[in-house]
Amino acid sequence: MTIILYDLAGGQDQRFSGPCWRTRFALAHKGLAFETRPVRFTQIPGIAGGGQKTVPVLDDGGRIIGDSWAIATYLEETYPKTPSLFGGAQGRAYALFINNWMNVIGPLMLKVILLDLYARLDPADQSYFRESREKRFGKTLEAHAAEPMETRVAVLRAVVEPARAVLREQPFLSGAAPLYPDYLLAGYFMWARSMSPEKVLAEDDPLYAWFQRMLDLFGGMARKAPHEW
Amino acid sequence: MTIILYDLAGGQDQRFSGPCWRTRFALAHKGLAFETRPVRFTQIPGIAGGGQKTVPVLDDGGRIIGDSWAIATYLEETYPKTPSLFGGAQGRAYALFINNWMNVIGPLMLKVILLDLYARLDPADQSYFRESREKRFGKTLEAHAAEPMETRVAVLRAVVEPARAVLREQPFLSGAAPLYPDYLLAGYFMWARSMSPEKVLAEDDPLYAWFQRMLDLFGGMARKAPHEW
Repeated sequence: MTIILYDLAGGQDQRFSGPCWRTRFALAHKGLAFETRPVRFTQIPGIAGGGQKTVPVLDDGGRIIGDSWAIATYLEETYPKTPSLFGGAQGRAYALFINNWMNVIGPLMLKVILLDLYARLDPADQSYFRESREKRFGKTLEAHAAEPMETRVAVLRAVVEPARAVLREQPFLSGAAPLYPDYLLAGYFMWARSMSPEKVLAEDDPLYAWFQRMLDLFGGMARKAPHEW
Repeated sequence: MTIILYDLAGGQDQRFSGPCWRTRFALAHKGLAFETRPVRFTQIPGIAGGGQKTVPVLDDGGRIIGDSWAIATYLEETYPKTPSLFGGAQGRAYALFINNWMNVIGPLMLKVILLDLYARLDPADQSYFRESREKRFGKTLEAHAAEPMETRVAVLRAVVEPARAVLREQPFLSGAAPLYPDYLLAGYFMWARSMSPEKVLAEDDPLYAWFQRMLDLFGGMARKAPHEW
């Protein structure tokens, strides 16, 4: 049975969620047939009978799994004959670290794309997004993104330096081929690419070349998605 | 033949270098016999015939290897029958990432311990240290460490959050047992523990419990080293 991925969508059906992209890459990596169902933020509580607070949510023949890390480990355990997402115990530890490192990267990426993202949300999501994020930030969206764009981009580019340094030595974070650590980071760059014209990576950045390789994977799956750069 | 590790030493023979501790843990992990030779910063150019700019430096029966990452990969390749430092290709990729992430952690740790460290250097090293670091920082040591200690410690504790999150789920960064990623991070905590009374980790921090486990390894090798907390 085809797996269903509930996938966050913008006003023009941009599939912009970093965590949803992790899962989409993971499903493609494992060669599992899946369909996506676009959902807006405000539709999340109604997914698959209710009870979900975030996306991605997977429906695998009636088994409902939320949280991208839980989904990744579920897929790894449930489909052991498909290509491994982690490449063994050390790869799982690496992925777990990068999964948590994303909590450093995500907020800094969001500062760069925040107002563009807001403008591109489905109008039905905008008031929810503004209210929930302004509560989280303790200030308006505009105040949260008030630093000059140059500064916000520079901070983001600086904080991803450990990944850049790895990519100076090997083509993917995971070595010669991509695994889940690559999908984690690429997911957040898909977020930016989907919803903001701001080029968060300079073209001479090793991360840019790596991201092009990520866009090419699985027949250009990510490259074909609606994008701004 | 016993391997010789040239190991940075303070005024009271504290072995305080984070990179040297990585190598020391690596040698112990592999069960390789080694002796350390204390060196001061200003003695580095004279190590093993000259040409070295940093420590650790390893002398393995006349083969001289500098740079902690080069040493780790050398040990892994040269002694394949000893316990692996990386645990395979994915573990090596993980270690490479963490090796680069240390370049984020190191400067923030240094801000915490800087003046204590300076005070504990061998007097013969102090002017070299002050001059080289003030050139790097573009300001005096005192100005570089001018923020309140509470702030400096808070920043350090925040930036190690990805490791803390991993350690909430498993006993070591590498899973059930320590590998090179653990030695990388523990090395920097040894730096702090060797040269500053400032408790950089709260006792209820999962990183503190992990560090206690690291201190216990190899018969308490690290625990026995001169320390301030």
